Amino acid sequence: MFRVVCEDEVSGAREGVLETAHGRVRTPCFLPVATKGYVRMVSAGELREVGAEALISNALLLYMKPGVEVVAEAGGLHRFMGFEGTIFTDSGGFQVLRREFMPRFVTSGIVFRSPFDGSRQAVTPELCVAIQEALGSDVGVQLDDCPPYGLERERYVESVRRTLRWAEASLRARSCDDMMLFGVVQGGVDPELRRRCAERLVELEFQGYCLGGLSVGEPKEVMMGMVELMCELLPLEKPRYLMGVGSPVEVLEAVARGVDVFDSAFPTRNARHGAVYTWRGKYSITKAKNLRVHEPLEEGCTCPVCRSYSRAYVSHLMRCDEPLGKRLVSVHNLHFMMRLMEGARRAIRRGEFPEYLQGVRRVFGR
Amino acid sequence: MFRVVCEDEVSGAREGVLETAHGRVRTPCFLPVATKGYVRMVSAGELREVGAEALISNALLLYMKPGVEVVAEAGGLHRFMGFEGTIFTDSGGFQVLRREFMPRFVTSGIVFRSPFDGSRQAVTPELCVAIQEALGSDVGVQLDDCPPYGLERERYVESVRRTLRWAEASLRARSCDDMMLFGVVQGGVDPELRRRCAERLVELEFQGYCLGGLSVGEPKEVMMGMVELMCELLPLEKPRYLMGVGSPVEVLEAVARGVDVFDSAFPTRNARHGAVYTWRGKYSITKAKNLRVHEPLEEGCTCPVCRSYSRAYVSHLMRCDEPLGKRLVSVHNLHFMMRLMEGARRAIRRGEFPEYLQGVRRVFGR
Repeated sequence: MFRVVCEDEVSGAREGVLETAHGRVRTPCFLPVATKGYVRMVSAGELREVGAEALISNALLLYMKPGVEVVAEAGGLHRFMGFEGTIFTDSGGFQVLRREFMPRFVTSGIVFRSPFDGSRQAVTPELCVAIQEALGSDVGVQLDDCPPYGLERERYVESVRRTLRWAEASLRARSCDDMMLFGVVQGGVDPELRRRCAERLVELEFQGYCLGGLSVGEPKEVMMGMVELMCELLPLEKPRYLMGVGSPVEVLEAVARGVDVFDSAFPTRNARHGAVYTWRGKYSITKAKNLRVHEPLEEGCTCPVCRSYSRAYVSHLMRCDEPLGKRLVSVHNLHFMMRLMEGARRAIRRGEFPEYLQGVRRVFGR
Repeated sequence: MFRVVCEDEVSGAREGVLETAHGRVRTPCFLPVATKGYVRMVSAGELREVGAEALISNALLLYMKPGVEVVAEAGGLHRFMGFEGTIFTDSGGFQVLRREFMPRFVTSGIVFRSPFDGSRQAVTPELCVAIQEALGSDVGVQLDDCPPYGLERERYVESVRRTLRWAEASLRARSCDDMMLFGVVQGGVDPELRRRCAERLVELEFQGYCLGGLSVGEPKEVMMGMVELMCELLPLEKPRYLMGVGSPVEVLEAVARGVDVFDSAFPTRNARHGAVYTWRGKYSITKAKNLRVHEPLEEGCTCPVCRSYSRAYVSHLMRCDEPLGKRLVSVHNLHFMMRLMEGARRAIRRGEFPEYLQGVRRVFGR
C-alpha cells in the first residue's frame, strides 16, 4: 500500500509511493481541497492538467449536501466529480466542531446542527466510516475530536481519550478493504498526550496516520516540534499526513521531519485574493502595474494558464472581479504546489533536500 | 470579404462566409459576448472547444478599463484574450447611453461619466474607430445613437440624423483596411425612418450593416417587422448583423428574414441562473430532482461538459453557488448556440430551413 522509496540522509524527509484503488500517489504530495466535492473554481480536467494525483474531500459535508445516496447512485465520488485519481476523505469532525455547527459531544459521537437546513444531526465514528465507504473514498480518516489551540489541558486529555475510543470503533466499523483508513493523532501541544495518542494508534495498526489538531492557532515552532515528535513515534513504513498545512515553507519544513501527505486550501484561497505563487516568490496580480506586464504569470511555467494568458490579462480579469481570473490563478497556484512537491521528491532522491528547503525558504521567507 | 453561399428558396435565410483578418466565419453565426474582453466564466480554450469562430467585445468599455494602450501593448485584443478567431467590436454607444453613464450629446459625440473612476469622458465617432483599430478588431461598428423603445418620434428622427452624421465621420476616420467597418441602421420602429437611414448607409458603402436599436423593449412582432423591412433594403451581398438578439427562436426567426450575424449574453446569462438549453427545450439545473439524474446535461451532446459531468454534479455545484457550476452551464449553452447555428446553415444548404425553424419553435415555444 505504501512504500518508502528513498530517505534523505540528513533530514527525516522521504520519498514514497502510496498505492490506492485509484492508482499511485507519489509522496511527499499535496492534496488540493475539494471539501464539498469540488475544488473551488477548478474543473476535474484542470486538476488532471496540473498533475494532481490525489485530492481530499469531506465526508460529512457531502453527507449533508448533496447526500451520500446521490454520490453513491452516481457510482461514487470519483465518477460524480469526474476525477480519476486518488480521493482522500476527511471525516468532517474538524468542520462540525466549529461554532456555527453548534456541536455537542454525546457518548457515541457528536450532535450538531446542519448549516444547510438547520436540522439536528448526529455523527458517530461508525457513520463516518460508512459514509466514506459509500462515497468510494480511497483513503478515509477516522472521526476525531479536534479542539482549537489554547484551551486547558483537561480538554486535550478528553480529546485524546475520545479520539482513541473512536479510533477503535472506526476500525471495527470497516466493511471492506478497498478503502485505507487513517487514524488521527491528537493531544494538542502536550508532548505526553501526543505520545500517548500516537502509541495507542500505532498498536491499533491503521494504514496511515494523520497528524491532527495542528495548524489551529499555535505558534509555528510549536507545531513543528509536535510534527517532529510524532514522526519519531509513528512507524516508518506508514504514511504520515499533516492536515491543513499549508504554505510552501511549512509544507517543506514538515517534509523535512518525515511527513508524506499535506492538504490545504492555501493555494486556491490565496488565488481568489490575487496572490500568485512562483519560484521567485509570491506577488499580487491585482496591482495595476501588472496590467503592463505582457508575460505569463510566471516566466518559464508550463501550466495551462501560463501557456495561454499574460499577467496583464489575468490582472484585468481580477480587477474586473471576474471569476475566470480567480480560476486562472487557482490553476496556476495548484500547478505551482504540484511542482513544489515534485521538486521535493527529486531533491530527496538526489540527496539535496536540505538545499532545496533552504532555497524555498530564501524565496518565501521563514 | 463576405460571400453568400446558398439561399433558402422559401424564406430569406442564407448561408454565407465572412472572411476577416482572423479567418473564416460561417454565417448565420452567433457571437458570444465578451464585453470587457472576456466571456463571463468561460476561457478562450473553452470558446475554441465549443467551436466559436467569432465573438464580440466592446470598444468603449475596453477603452476605459484596462485602457487601449494596455491591449495595444499586448499585441491587440486577440493576443490579450488568447482568442485566435474573429473579433467584432461594438462601438459602445449603446452602453454609454444607459443612465448610469449620465450621457449628454454634444455636436461631436457623447459626453459621459466613467462608472470606473467617475471621470468625465467624451466619445466621438472618430475616437471609436481609432479605439477599434488600436484594439486590432476584425469588424468594427460605427458609433451610433441608440434610443430606448417608446419615446416620441422626434427622438428617433434625431437618432437617425446623428447616426448618419457619425457614419460619415466614421468612414472618414478609418486609417487602415484590416478592419471591416459596419454601419448601424437606426430609426426606432418607424418604417419611414428605418428606410431613410438604411438607404443613406447603403450609399455610404459600409462593409456590413448592423440592425441597431432593436430588442430594446418593443414587442417581438414589431421587431421582426423592422428586421424584415431592413433586410429588404440592405444589399444582398453585404452581411447583416442583428445586435443583442437573442433566444434560439428569435435568432432563427431573424435568420429567416435574412440576418447573418447575432450576439447576445442570453446563453451565458441564463446559464448563470441555471437555465440549460438543449434540443428538447430548456430546464433549470438547480431543481433538486436533477441531483438524481446521472446523465449528461443533454443526452448525446458532445460538448466538453456533457462528456465529463452529470446533471447531478452540475446541479450540486449550482446549488452550492459554486462558480464552476456557472462555468459548466455557460460552456454547454454556448455549445448549444453554436450547434443551433450549424444546424441552421445545414438546413439552408439542404433546403430545409423552414422545417428546421418550425422544429425549434415547437421545442422552445414562440
